[in-house]
Amino acid sequence: MNVVLIGSGNVATHLAKALKASGVQILQVWSKHFIHAEALASVTGARPIQHLSEIQTDADLCILSIKDDAITAVANELSHFKGTMVHTSGAVPIAVFKGMFSHYGVFYPLQTFSKGREIDFDTVPLCIEANDPETLQMLLDLGEQLSSRVSEVNSEKRRILHLAAVFACNFPNHLYALAAGLLGEYHLNFDLLRPLILETALKVQHADPQTVQTGPAIRFDEQSLEKHKALLSGDEHLKKIYQLLSESIKKTKK
Amino acid sequence: MNVVLIGSGNVATHLAKALKASGVQILQVWSKHFIHAEALASVTGARPIQHLSEIQTDADLCILSIKDDAITAVANELSHFKGTMVHTSGAVPIAVFKGMFSHYGVFYPLQTFSKGREIDFDTVPLCIEANDPETLQMLLDLGEQLSSRVSEVNSEKRRILHLAAVFACNFPNHLYALAAGLLGEYHLNFDLLRPLILETALKVQHADPQTVQTGPAIRFDEQSLEKHKALLSGDEHLKKIYQLLSESIKKTKK
Repeated sequence: MNVVLIGSGNVATHLAKALKASGVQILQVWSKHFIHAEALASVTGARPIQHLSEIQTDADLCILSIKDDAITAVANELSHFKGTMVHTSGAVPIAVFKGMFSHYGVFYPLQTFSKGREIDFDTVPLCIEANDPETLQMLLDLGEQLSSRVSEVNSEKRRILHLAAVFACNFPNHLYALAAGLLGEYHLNFDLLRPLILETALKVQHADPQTVQTGPAIRFDEQSLEKHKALLSGDEHLKKIYQLLSESIKKTKK
Repeated sequence: MNVVLIGSGNVATHLAKALKASGVQILQVWSKHFIHAEALASVTGARPIQHLSEIQTDADLCILSIKDDAITAVANELSHFKGTMVHTSGAVPIAVFKGMFSHYGVFYPLQTFSKGREIDFDTVPLCIEANDPETLQMLLDLGEQLSSRVSEVNSEKRRILHLAAVFACNFPNHLYALAAGLLGEYHLNFDLLRPLILETALKVQHADPQTVQTGPAIRFDEQSLEKHKALLSGDEHLKKIYQLLSESIKKTKK
């Protein structure tokens, strides 16, 4: 199995390393900025290419790991590619490739990747979709070389996962930031909250989050809720978030 | 050092085990329900007591680990106690004990404790407050036997921590529950989101949450935001939360 990689962002980088580690040959890397293609190519033993037209058309697989709104345009420039074409996006339907390639699909890793943080790729859920049974099997097989959490997920369900990931990742991180801001105002160190944040996430690795909900709202502890709102009286924005999420927690118990 | 423990909830239980493990003698345990006092006493080598009047008045320390709104009433029943009196609440000011005891303070572990989950107490931030320097030193020394994260925090700052903990723990957990609900509607397994949740919390163990914010809102990716809101069009409540938190994320960048 050999692969051409289009893109050099966080997803592309982590994916490239995982592919290499499991023995898949990465032939070429392209990036909008050639210097990034060179960097990623050098750690994966691939050849950096400057123009999409240089793509090796007989490679087994081409992975588009680029911004959602660039997928159509880049795929158009690669229409001479003969292998299987996939993208790695949570939100773009498989139909984006319809009529352009014979074999195509989606290879979506549901994780947040950052520069400078190692990820154990074996734990990354891979959501696979393909336009025919043989391509599906090929992508599932490849996925299983990289991760022990591979599943077939269609485009409709994938966009729900992508939306749910905002609630499970982007919004909690923002709430950490708001908490850090509150602490900063009172010259308190954010380290005081870090163990709590980690334990909260660890707790739901086995439990259903609804069953382990804690805090004043789930207890309908109106006295504490009022005290907290009074503390936030100088910050209408934080107070609004406090109010809406507390009401939402109460609703789940009704 | 010996201790009388009033309460048998999650905080009392985890604290009792940590005290015992570090060689502190727990003399007595009281609980509103005697059967709970017996259970906790049996694992900590203490004696369960049925009535507050039975408290050993010459113990070094009495720890009230009970509901916030019960602290005043229970402390009143223990006014004959001669040692140091502390509570473990984030929200109740130290002044609750004023005029009742000679030495008193607060011993607040900033963590979420649950039944059946072990906690490495060494990582639990302990926020200490006392009414005089000797008591403060005694409580700091005791804290350092249990945890490597002990700090002096006054009542005003402690209530800010308690509020910030709602943003850093209770609200994120609720967002996990909302994400789980979304997945459930589409027959998707919550396991798909668990690695993402954990990685999001791990990421901020060293980083500042603001600097690692991801998702469509921080990129001002209006197309994705509109798509997500369209997906939520049947659920005004979720849509409102999506809208408010996305706007809040955008604000942090302006």
